[in-house]
Amino acid sequence: MEKFKVVFKPGGKSIEVKKGADLLQVAVASGLHINSSCAGEGICGRCKVIIKKGAFRTEPTGRISHEERKKGYVLACLTTVEGNLEVHVPKDSLLDLGKIKEADAKLYRLKGIYSEAVDIDKGKPIISEDVFKHSPISTKLYIELPPPTLDDSVSDYERLMREIKEKYDVPIVQTGLRNIRRLGSILRYSDWKVTVTLGKRNETTEVVIIEPGDSSGENYGVAFDIGTTTISGQLINLDTKEILGTKAAYNKQIMFGDDVITRIMFATEENGLERLHHAVIDNMNAIINELIAEHKIPLSRLTGVICAGNTTMIHLLLRVDPTYIRKEPYVSTANFVPVIRAAEAGIKIHPRGLAACIPGVSTYVGGDIVAGAVACGINNTDKLTLLIDVGTNGEIVLGSREWMACCSASAGPAFEGSGVSCGMRAIKGAIGKVEINSKLEAKVETIQNEKPMGICGSGYVDLIAEMFKRGIIKRDGKINRDLKSKNIRKGDGEFEYIVVPKKKAGSNYDIVIKESDIENIKRSKGAIYAAVSMLIKKFGLKFNDVKQIFIAGGFGTFLNMDNAVFIGLLPDIDRKKFRFVGNSSLIGAREILLSYETMKRAEEIAGKMTYIDFSKDSAYMDEYMSALFFPHTDLGQFPSVKK
Amino acid sequence: MEKFKVVFKPGGKSIEVKKGADLLQVAVASGLHINSSCAGEGICGRCKVIIKKGAFRTEPTGRISHEERKKGYVLACLTTVEGNLEVHVPKDSLLDLGKIKEADAKLYRLKGIYSEAVDIDKGKPIISEDVFKHSPISTKLYIELPPPTLDDSVSDYERLMREIKEKYDVPIVQTGLRNIRRLGSILRYSDWKVTVTLGKRNETTEVVIIEPGDSSGENYGVAFDIGTTTISGQLINLDTKEILGTKAAYNKQIMFGDDVITRIMFATEENGLERLHHAVIDNMNAIINELIAEHKIPLSRLTGVICAGNTTMIHLLLRVDPTYIRKEPYVSTANFVPVIRAAEAGIKIHPRGLAACIPGVSTYVGGDIVAGAVACGINNTDKLTLLIDVGTNGEIVLGSREWMACCSASAGPAFEGSGVSCGMRAIKGAIGKVEINSKLEAKVETIQNEKPMGICGSGYVDLIAEMFKRGIIKRDGKINRDLKSKNIRKGDGEFEYIVVPKKKAGSNYDIVIKESDIENIKRSKGAIYAAVSMLIKKFGLKFNDVKQIFIAGGFGTFLNMDNAVFIGLLPDIDRKKFRFVGNSSLIGAREILLSYETMKRAEEIAGKMTYIDFSKDSAYMDEYMSALFFPHTDLGQFPSVKK
Repeated sequence: MEKFKVVFKPGGKSIEVKKGADLLQVAVASGLHINSSCAGEGICGRCKVIIKKGAFRTEPTGRISHEERKKGYVLACLTTVEGNLEVHVPKDSLLDLGKIKEADAKLYRLKGIYSEAVDIDKGKPIISEDVFKHSPISTKLYIELPPPTLDDSVSDYERLMREIKEKYDVPIVQTGLRNIRRLGSILRYSDWKVTVTLGKRNETTEVVIIEPGDSSGENYGVAFDIGTTTISGQLINLDTKEILGTKAAYNKQIMFGDDVITRIMFATEENGLERLHHAVIDNMNAIINELIAEHKIPLSRLTGVICAGNTTMIHLLLRVDPTYIRKEPYVSTANFVPVIRAAEAGIKIHPRGLAACIPGVSTYVGGDIVAGAVACGINNTDKLTLLIDVGTNGEIVLGSREWMACCSASAGPAFEGSGVSCGMRAIKGAIGKVEINSKLEAKVETIQNEKPMGICGSGYVDLIAEMFKRGIIKRDGKINRDLKSKNIRKGDGEFEYIVVPKKKAGSNYDIVIKESDIENIKRSKGAIYAAVSMLIKKFGLKFNDVKQIFIAGGFGTFLNMDNAVFIGLLPDIDRKKFRFVGNSSLIGAREILLSYETMKRAEEIAGKMTYIDFSKDSAYMDEYMSALFFPHTDLGQFPSVKK
Repeated sequence: MEKFKVVFKPGGKSIEVKKGADLLQVAVASGLHINSSCAGEGICGRCKVIIKKGAFRTEPTGRISHEERKKGYVLACLTTVEGNLEVHVPKDSLLDLGKIKEADAKLYRLKGIYSEAVDIDKGKPIISEDVFKHSPISTKLYIELPPPTLDDSVSDYERLMREIKEKYDVPIVQTGLRNIRRLGSILRYSDWKVTVTLGKRNETTEVVIIEPGDSSGENYGVAFDIGTTTISGQLINLDTKEILGTKAAYNKQIMFGDDVITRIMFATEENGLERLHHAVIDNMNAIINELIAEHKIPLSRLTGVICAGNTTMIHLLLRVDPTYIRKEPYVSTANFVPVIRAAEAGIKIHPRGLAACIPGVSTYVGGDIVAGAVACGINNTDKLTLLIDVGTNGEIVLGSREWMACCSASAGPAFEGSGVSCGMRAIKGAIGKVEINSKLEAKVETIQNEKPMGICGSGYVDLIAEMFKRGIIKRDGKINRDLKSKNIRKGDGEFEYIVVPKKKAGSNYDIVIKESDIENIKRSKGAIYAAVSMLIKKFGLKFNDVKQIFIAGGFGTFLNMDNAVFIGLLPDIDRKKFRFVGNSSLIGAREILLSYETMKRAEEIAGKMTYIDFSKDSAYMDEYMSALFFPHTDLGQFPSVKK
């Protein structure tokens, strides 16, 4: 078989491949992270590259314009290598993994809801540290054993267990054969001074690791939020509870599809499940390696990992076939997964270290939302509380200490900057704030004040609110054709508003919002609002009965609550009740990493939470249709907007 | 490197090896089981072979006589290959693995103490079936799950657990990731009808295996007694409790040393522990394969294994370094080992099947003797009971339901037919019964009525008793030089009695007992008797206080109790109190395989039993010295013999 060399520019990554190789796969193999959300089926049109030199074959596609074609544009996924190639990869086609790291700094500064909660309750935190004992998934215990004598000649193992039980009041302690195999020499080599790592494995306390000497001050863990789009990991000192750092990366599974359904379908293909599994594991191990490199912590000091994720993400992480999730009656293989050794899932920490997944409620409500409920302390307050987690799959929890219910809404990824023409994630250069002046010119703020590259979730919230206030759009979301402005034009078959013209932008095109984008946002906010509204009504309540509302999600690092109400995403109630908490799943995962009791609470929550399925409810469809206006058909529901 | 072909005769096994290869190792590699008890150091002289043709190098040794040397005899362990060789392996140098199988038939027929115990207690068995629930280490449960519906959409895993908990009242049930990975497809493929294997892993009940369809009638396990010399395995139907068959094999570790101390020393050599471990695992897997082949049971139907063995054997089985057992203060690494997956130790049953080792009391009193105590029901009777297990390391248990004490005695392997000039194990051709007539001629019975090949334990008991009765030996064990008989002669530097002359024997030499053999037996019986006597006295008791005495060990399949008393091996009390039980460890292992409660009893026994160390007690030395006569210095202790 002939082999050819493919060079990717800029960057110059090169790789030798067989004739006929798929160019998208070649790019991935060379280490490039190319956008693609249709699993390489030529549908999404995101993997555009320009072939500068060389022989290739490509299939015709409507995703490449005539002009682009002349410049050498092809879709990488439809192109095969037929000779040595030089390929140029446009900036827009690259998943920029480098940039996300800087955005994480903000995630890190977002210390969760703890400090904020103090304000609400006048100094009393929602989840007080007293409520949960500090009992991380894995605890280190330094022990000096009395050496055996002729009078005290119990075996090494019994000696160790005897000492642990004296110092540490735990009912069942056992260990694995590997530890026993090394026990005799470790005890003697260390002069009977060892550090044991005790881990909670379900109902059993296990001696996970036995190390010579005293390493009890060095015990670390990683909390993970495994999102469909972004994977975040936070390094925690399990002794001091200190957050050492947070890293995030795009979920590499995006390569195989944007949403969970596409990925579940991909999982059924040959090696599909394996590839999806390895994608997420690669992500997680890369995050772990970055974190420990930055903090100069040896891998062997990581003893535990907690993962929050939706049900499909957890299936893929554990390499469990997710097929049945999307087949009626939509049953997952496991919502509750026993604690495992991290290595069993391919997560690289100490080879004997533990990993736990936060239990989910159902196929549609995963451990991520349970983690969010834990983080917001819903199970620990008498106040009626609402948690709205806006993601590709929006998830809503309502309740308090007494009861809890949840539902989900197919919001789509618009608020995450996906599926909208100039959308992007909340990273450097994303437009996060917008105001429109009377000349109908937009004044924007971008993340880290970079030249605008696109619009993120919070930017869309502002943009639509401002367009509506200025009359650029009407309540149905259509652009007002009567307005005379250089910023309003009929573009490629549809009307659009120019937010930032090309010359002021960091991109090589005008940053616009099209009517179809507005339609997308409208559907997203409509789905969320309808679900929230239905859930409240289901229990015979009114919006004003809710005492606190937590908003979580990947909007950006700030969210203008007034505008969110103005467009009809959030209900029109006292703004003081709102708290934007950022990544509530990650916060919950961290709490669980630090406290076994919190894991038990999570299990309780998962067991107690009622999942309400509105997908087949005609009333939901009515609510949704009514919410497909800005802010809503029924202005009575939005008195402050009406004013 | 030059290669040469080595052919072993009879049999014709051949192997190609490098120049300079060690001939003993070559023989082992070719599949021959050659005697050797000094780990190939040229000491024991057991690996004699005759080189018929070819070039070799050998070291001089006193173990080969001048005459033998002329015939081409060498010690295989001292010989290296320097050319193509033809090697003749004499019958006596071979561990005859073929023959042991037939002897096993007897072991199989020996149904343990159950039926006998019924006689003693007038119809009431010692361990009644009512006492222990039938709760094998692994239980199969056939379950038909209700398929999920939109209204009942709990996950597959929760559905399964829900159903198990409904049918089977167990507190904690969990499973491993491997089962969860396959769960979704198994449930659907089997139309929601599955068989789960529940196993007890310490305090947790685990779903060990999930199989499609109904295989609940096919659940098998193997009970093992891992002796220093012999390994026995018994195939059990875990549902019906039926014993399907028993197989035994010489412990292949004999290659590396006869006793535990030599093997512990060998374990410290390079790869020593690995080789010892693989030897015992090979044995066990071979026994398993023979058993299942004979009963046409697929390997996947074996779900549990229980192992009884002394502390060193269990260490080697689990590949745990036994070094510290022989270093003061003589501490083992573990007497109590948690339940493991059989595969972790290399035992080949179902890949997820379980293996447990019966807990031991101390370095010197292993799980084998605890198993014996369980088998004899010592923990379940009010009668003061004595168990004497005569092995290379003799072990003695005294007690009842209330209390239990044990001690050990370095009896040596004489009663197992080892370390005595014409000794052999209790297999076909072994002299098991002896009478001597007035002409001082011995009349012998052999196992399976074959031509006599040597003398096994029960044969030595008879032989010495008869020689004593006929005045051939005196109370000090010396042969009466004044007796005129063709059967008494001065052999190779010492006096000996001819039991069977060469012409009547199956061997090519006279079967004799030498004064040094008598000395060996005397030391063995003296060590046992002294230990029994000391243990009784230690608790202020007398022999007659003991209500029942169980004798276990590898004597053969019958043991003449009168003669055992006559030579002073057993105390002189009412013969009706004696029961010869054969392999009590194997019986105990089987009971534990069939009943989790019995394992808990074994743990109780191991925790409760007091180990008494007489090794540094001067009174023991006095007892021992007094017992170095037939039957004893103090004839008052043996009134029936005195008569």
